[in-house]
Amino acid sequence: MNIQPVRVAQYGIGPIGAEIARLLLTKPWVKLVAAIDIDPKKIGKDVGDVIGLIKPVGVNVTPDVQGRPEVVCHSTGSRLREVASQLKSLLERGCHVVSTCEELSFPLDQKIRAELQHAARAANVTLLGTGVNPGFVMDKLPLTITSVCQRVDSVQIVRIQNASTRREPLQRKVGAGMTRAEFERAVADGKIKHMGLRESLMLVGNGLGVEFDHVSDEKIAPIVAEREITTQYLKVAPGQVAGVHQTIEGKGRINVSLELRMYVGAEDVAADRVIVRGVPDVEMEIKAGIHGDRATAAMVVNAIPRVISARPGVLTMDDIPISFR
Amino acid sequence: MNIQPVRVAQYGIGPIGAEIARLLLTKPWVKLVAAIDIDPKKIGKDVGDVIGLIKPVGVNVTPDVQGRPEVVCHSTGSRLREVASQLKSLLERGCHVVSTCEELSFPLDQKIRAELQHAARAANVTLLGTGVNPGFVMDKLPLTITSVCQRVDSVQIVRIQNASTRREPLQRKVGAGMTRAEFERAVADGKIKHMGLRESLMLVGNGLGVEFDHVSDEKIAPIVAEREITTQYLKVAPGQVAGVHQTIEGKGRINVSLELRMYVGAEDVAADRVIVRGVPDVEMEIKAGIHGDRATAAMVVNAIPRVISARPGVLTMDDIPISFR
Repeated sequence: MNIQPVRVAQYGIGPIGAEIARLLLTKPWVKLVAAIDIDPKKIGKDVGDVIGLIKPVGVNVTPDVQGRPEVVCHSTGSRLREVASQLKSLLERGCHVVSTCEELSFPLDQKIRAELQHAARAANVTLLGTGVNPGFVMDKLPLTITSVCQRVDSVQIVRIQNASTRREPLQRKVGAGMTRAEFERAVADGKIKHMGLRESLMLVGNGLGVEFDHVSDEKIAPIVAEREITTQYLKVAPGQVAGVHQTIEGKGRINVSLELRMYVGAEDVAADRVIVRGVPDVEMEIKAGIHGDRATAAMVVNAIPRVISARPGVLTMDDIPISFR
Repeated sequence: MNIQPVRVAQYGIGPIGAEIARLLLTKPWVKLVAAIDIDPKKIGKDVGDVIGLIKPVGVNVTPDVQGRPEVVCHSTGSRLREVASQLKSLLERGCHVVSTCEELSFPLDQKIRAELQHAARAANVTLLGTGVNPGFVMDKLPLTITSVCQRVDSVQIVRIQNASTRREPLQRKVGAGMTRAEFERAVADGKIKHMGLRESLMLVGNGLGVEFDHVSDEKIAPIVAEREITTQYLKVAPGQVAGVHQTIEGKGRINVSLELRMYVGAEDVAADRVIVRGVPDVEMEIKAGIHGDRATAAMVVNAIPRVISARPGVLTMDDIPISFR
């Protein structure tokens, strides 16, 4: 680790950005040098105030980046086309960027990818999309586990997350408390969708060196409550929607399937699972599953030293080793 | 992946080397170009004959390396001082080297490490020690899992391996069938010891960025059979030794403990476990545990593309990403 702390900026101070900023401030090897957000209610305030700390940090929120932080933690949006110009401008400024943009975890838009690749290489810096999902539990972790295999026939990745322990917007976002009809409408309107499942699938396929012959559509179905479920924020009656069941699979030399269940009332069944069929078989389980928001902030911050020492360009989680730092 | 297959040599054709060679021959992206062993009974024979294949491979076993393979898979010994001159000569020849030498997984002898570092960097090639343990289940995998943590207080790593499913030399090596007195004598003579546990501990500590205040001695105790245990190769009476229980721990800002139980008759309890206390807690389990010999060969071969694209020098598993290839 450097003797000099790494100069880091936090770009985007929504719920995830605030979690990242709070974590950055606990790390002795980080110096938070800037905080960026476009919200007029946040601009000009001390970032400590904005992220709920008692003491001021001594860094005011600005609407754009000043100077040249060594690394920017970026958390402003899920879609690549919405954040591409922000990312490009950060790279051109000479900053490494670690972003929670879900579509950046494995950029499928080749035009945007090429532009970012060019900008990163020209400035000799690295761009990485990460998070807990996409970025770890349904892609990086399964890939890492397959390394013990002489042969892989299939990889089944299952994440069952208990939305009851998550923040209210997430509970609403998975459809908890909706009728089936409301849920179907929300899906049709694109309002209920975990972002990044396709990216995770393609990241796994790419890491295993397989080009899928066929990739399914993403299926999004309701999980219906069989009993009444009460959370800190809402109540779900039997027959109402408790959450979402989202799946995708790739078929080819190796079959890979991803299944995500996020719903309230999943206390007893929550888990992350990877089942590899091959030589040897591997069955891995993480009890109760990895908590989303906490872990996403951790992935971003833990990736910082790895990104600094990685080669320049647009990287994925399959290109770097990772651990707590 | 290259269009041209990678030219790989297998150095050392004992049980593990033979397993690696058989696996190399199944990979379309590998061309096995040489096989090296000092055993006069193997020299001059087709390697396919030596490793138990029906068809000849067209590569004869030689007592030393000819030409310049791009990568050498090295599997001749567990102790760094016994294999250092072999490794140095391979690096000086300009070959990347992936070795199963347990002490290479995290070289503790700084003099040897510096010599190998110099040789690797001078020739612009990479040297990696890997395997399933050390190399993955008790170091790389726990490190990878900690990446979801904002804070880590302790990491508890437990590997319970059922020796009944392993080859006879391994069953003998863990002391199965010995009396307690025979076991204690064998431990005192250095004949019963899983190699690499200390290296795994130090690799984990290093990856987490912690310097331990105190590292315990390795404790090696017998696991005594409570019932009669019969394997393909031997029988253990109640009161006799079924296997070995080996532990080590590092205390510091983060406490790390490693516990390895390898014994016959462990069918029902075999597992690999990582328990991280921190924010958040993580409890991971691999059911039945990862089979040793199969997985070691897999780790070596799967590491080849990662080593080719890594930076030159002496690397550890914490320096590279890994997956099935």
